[in-house]
Amino acid sequence: MSFREYLAGQQQLIDRELDRLVPSENFPPETIHRAMRYSLFAGGKRVRPILCLEAGRAVADSPRGIETAACSLEFVHTYSLIHDDLPALDNDDYRRGKLTSHKVFGEAMAILAGDALLTLAFETLSKMNAVTDDRKARVIAELATAAGTVGGMIAGQVADLEGEGKPPDAQLLETIHRAKTGALLRASVRMGAIYAGADEQQLDAVSRYGEHIGLAFQIVDDILDVEQSSESLGKTAGKDAQQHKITFPAVYGLEESRRMAERERRSAHESLAIFDARADRLRELADLIVQRTS
Amino acid sequence: MSFREYLAGQQQLIDRELDRLVPSENFPPETIHRAMRYSLFAGGKRVRPILCLEAGRAVADSPRGIETAACSLEFVHTYSLIHDDLPALDNDDYRRGKLTSHKVFGEAMAILAGDALLTLAFETLSKMNAVTDDRKARVIAELATAAGTVGGMIAGQVADLEGEGKPPDAQLLETIHRAKTGALLRASVRMGAIYAGADEQQLDAVSRYGEHIGLAFQIVDDILDVEQSSESLGKTAGKDAQQHKITFPAVYGLEESRRMAERERRSAHESLAIFDARADRLRELADLIVQRTS
Repeated sequence: MSFREYLAGQQQLIDRELDRLVPSENFPPETIHRAMRYSLFAGGKRVRPILCLEAGRAVADSPRGIETAACSLEFVHTYSLIHDDLPALDNDDYRRGKLTSHKVFGEAMAILAGDALLTLAFETLSKMNAVTDDRKARVIAELATAAGTVGGMIAGQVADLEGEGKPPDAQLLETIHRAKTGALLRASVRMGAIYAGADEQQLDAVSRYGEHIGLAFQIVDDILDVEQSSESLGKTAGKDAQQHKITFPAVYGLEESRRMAERERRSAHESLAIFDARADRLRELADLIVQRTS
Repeated sequence: MSFREYLAGQQQLIDRELDRLVPSENFPPETIHRAMRYSLFAGGKRVRPILCLEAGRAVADSPRGIETAACSLEFVHTYSLIHDDLPALDNDDYRRGKLTSHKVFGEAMAILAGDALLTLAFETLSKMNAVTDDRKARVIAELATAAGTVGGMIAGQVADLEGEGKPPDAQLLETIHRAKTGALLRASVRMGAIYAGADEQQLDAVSRYGEHIGLAFQIVDDILDVEQSSESLGKTAGKDAQQHKITFPAVYGLEESRRMAERERRSAHESLAIFDARADRLRELADLIVQRTS
């Protein structure tokens, strides 16, 4: 089985668990559940949940119930996309080739669907039953911190909004991306490791891995936005430049950005040195994140 | 000391804890912390946190650290007001006599400030250190469920949005309010009781108390909206009627609505029969909720 086939299987595992965790479209109020499901099942690659699963498996054999914890990351990621796409924020009509939530359900419902997914993330974690309460509380704290305003996702979104139109600046760029995408990717592997009972050394190793792939992920995202047409990327490409966002290619140029992504990939591998072959999936994921074309 | 003086002291206790829990306005990104604090300290009466404190005290003497749990309710309540006031939802310019968040900080920041407060609620609960991990997980589950889409606050907001313009209908009215305001008020006392180590009978009693005062609270809110001028209520009064919202006075008339609120007050008292004088503050709160004029 190739790694891509393996990943397809993991995506299905996550999709089944997501489907189990989100109220059905027939459950009232139907509209909100339809809106939540529309964005959740709009073709996401489940990068964060799979990172969580694999970090858990690097620490312990098949930690039971970890896919539930993993889904909370997809809830938070999807909520952030729905709110980010709103007219008041990035004002995007398309995402992954499909109309964005507010174009389909209206702004009010899109705002509430985002709120509902964020809430469901914490409800899901708080009701997990295959993990000790101690680890559960630590996993919840990880997710909340990574999603928050102190170095977390919202801090990144605010810095991004306020950075629009400012001159390209290496330090601001790193601050934005460490928070906006980096924090949640780092939390993905940390949550998996904590769930599986990692010791301090293991947790430290996956945290560094998470930081390196987080940075690589964002650099590659920025490169793809420059390089690709709207059609193959499924969102409005070149939008970063239009909105005068600070990006890696804008600060470092395309060539140097590619070299940076490759350096981060190698550093991610080095971070995993203490782990045996059980961390091989994490190693392959680092490669895939840098080599992806969408 | 009168009950009102006592309450003013409790409000100060909550305000100090809120101030401790929210990052300072000088902490970057400054704008989001300013926006969070603007709405948090806009004159709220701290009804939910105080209900949480008093339910805890009815169960056990001064449960240590319970004010931290109580503040999570104010975070969720405030987030819901910020998002509710947005142009895409109720489109309110004023709340408690002050400009709403989006009028001061813009829509993008108001959306993010609401998101940030919801996130902070769960971060705060997950990091409490004066309670067992078991109770912590149960308290988090209570809050998330009450804020969610299955009979919780978001379910109520959706039903409310979709109910606009529909004929006044007693059953729809009750469904909306049980979810929209009732769930969080019920959760307030349940979270306090769980935090303090309530047994099943005690938890059941405060839950019924919470349901009765929740309904009373909403009936009185609707009555005040009809009766009062914009000036003394600090928000645009008569707005419910303008927006063709389903309200208790619209369904039952003013006089019958007043009688209903009084019946709920009495039922709230009866629910507390198993408790001794330590529940007297909860009893007085039920009276105050029905007798309030703002």
